[in-house]
Amino acid sequence: MITLPKLDFAVIEKKLTSFLVTEIEKTGLKKAVLGLSGGLDSALVAALAARALGKENVTGILMPYRTSSAKSVEDALKVVENTGINSLRIEISAVVDAFAANNMTNSDFSRKGRLGNIMARTRMMTLFDFSAANGAIVLGTGNKSEIELGYFTMFGDGASALNPIGSLYKTDIFEFARYLGLPSSVIEKAPSADLFEGQTDEGEIGYSYQTMDPVIHAFADLKLSEEEIVREGFDAKLVHFVTNRINSMRYKRNVPIVAKIQEDFK
Amino acid sequence: MITLPKLDFAVIEKKLTSFLVTEIEKTGLKKAVLGLSGGLDSALVAALAARALGKENVTGILMPYRTSSAKSVEDALKVVENTGINSLRIEISAVVDAFAANNMTNSDFSRKGRLGNIMARTRMMTLFDFSAANGAIVLGTGNKSEIELGYFTMFGDGASALNPIGSLYKTDIFEFARYLGLPSSVIEKAPSADLFEGQTDEGEIGYSYQTMDPVIHAFADLKLSEEEIVREGFDAKLVHFVTNRINSMRYKRNVPIVAKIQEDFK
Repeated sequence: MITLPKLDFAVIEKKLTSFLVTEIEKTGLKKAVLGLSGGLDSALVAALAARALGKENVTGILMPYRTSSAKSVEDALKVVENTGINSLRIEISAVVDAFAANNMTNSDFSRKGRLGNIMARTRMMTLFDFSAANGAIVLGTGNKSEIELGYFTMFGDGASALNPIGSLYKTDIFEFARYLGLPSSVIEKAPSADLFEGQTDEGEIGYSYQTMDPVIHAFADLKLSEEEIVREGFDAKLVHFVTNRINSMRYKRNVPIVAKIQEDFK
Repeated sequence: MITLPKLDFAVIEKKLTSFLVTEIEKTGLKKAVLGLSGGLDSALVAALAARALGKENVTGILMPYRTSSAKSVEDALKVVENTGINSLRIEISAVVDAFAANNMTNSDFSRKGRLGNIMARTRMMTLFDFSAANGAIVLGTGNKSEIELGYFTMFGDGASALNPIGSLYKTDIFEFARYLGLPSSVIEKAPSADLFEGQTDEGEIGYSYQTMDPVIHAFADLKLSEEEIVREGFDAKLVHFVTNRINSMRYKRNVPIVAKIQEDFK
């Protein structure tokens, strides 16, 4: 059975902190900013950034919407305490509501999904606006499982300048967070985009990351075909779901597609 | 002296309309949406999309901010009339103002530039929200001159699903628009992001596109060095400005930079 490669977290920590140091040096800036959702991915990025850049150079912004859970805000504050970074709270409700009032009716059939995208993009705008005002690089918090599955909002939570954890599977992120001593309440809760009440990634996608990650690895990294992965002993329905989803979401990682004309005219 | 390659607009028209047909077919959708600013780039994309997909399948959204010029709205409506596409007007003032009230003070030193980015990103949100609600692909309207010079807002006007004109220099776009019979008032006015009153691209950048485009071509396409381009007879200050700007804006076209770890663990 295919499993995820075993990671040496001491090596990974060193590699990812030096990635942050090197890439931020290239920009001539010293500070970084990220959205703190109260979830595990942003907690891990906060911890790595604090180690790499010094906690005084890192700001985490809590950006709750009216319906975001109080537990998320509590957990985000635990991350602030645990990592020692600066924090700021900017409610996004007024902006999201103004957008919704401007662009949709209450009876809109597609309202729920669209609202989630609007929240994610309003958070992106908030982070890049802070970046412009304060000379801080926007750090991304998407992990490899989410990126491969396309489980993110294009130009929303998928948008950042630097992403230190985009090559780590969610399965690894749980272990890495334990290794770095992040708050257990953040590590142990069910992953959620927290866009509406009761939402969990597993509830929405249909499988847990622990179930999907080896299949994603076999398909995306080892380049095995759907049939080959099934022959390795994975459930055929699971494999079909994962490989199909990776294929159909590929465009999200490659936008915009730009028409090419130049080569014909050299 | 280096000049832009001479384009055969009949060939280019065929190439770009079949790009749109092919790429939209891949998504399984039939419709497209774009922002209509009243400027030349969006007019050209509207004309190409109408020819490729049928005018009834294309929607142009006018998204004026309170300070957008009335002339821009007039010109956008001329484009609607000229191309026969559907149109919609969604004012972005309420959303932009809610964001500004939430995130900055009136005395903020960086207010003007930040407001421009907020407008561009609110328009992106509006287009992608329309896309989600109506199953229409978001078309980008950035030209090669702007893209190379980084003269766009990341995750704002730089964000789209498909961009048919991203390989065309602004110099070529003027001629192509004449070839396609676009309204002369749109072709003849000074290019402007229309983010604040009296703004023009040339006023902000310092050179006209006609002046910069051959230098961009020499550097970005022909891969000549700064020194080689000066030896070709171009003004040294112009060449330094353009090559330096292309280099320093490179990151805007390549975000996010994702840390890589996997290769070590295969």
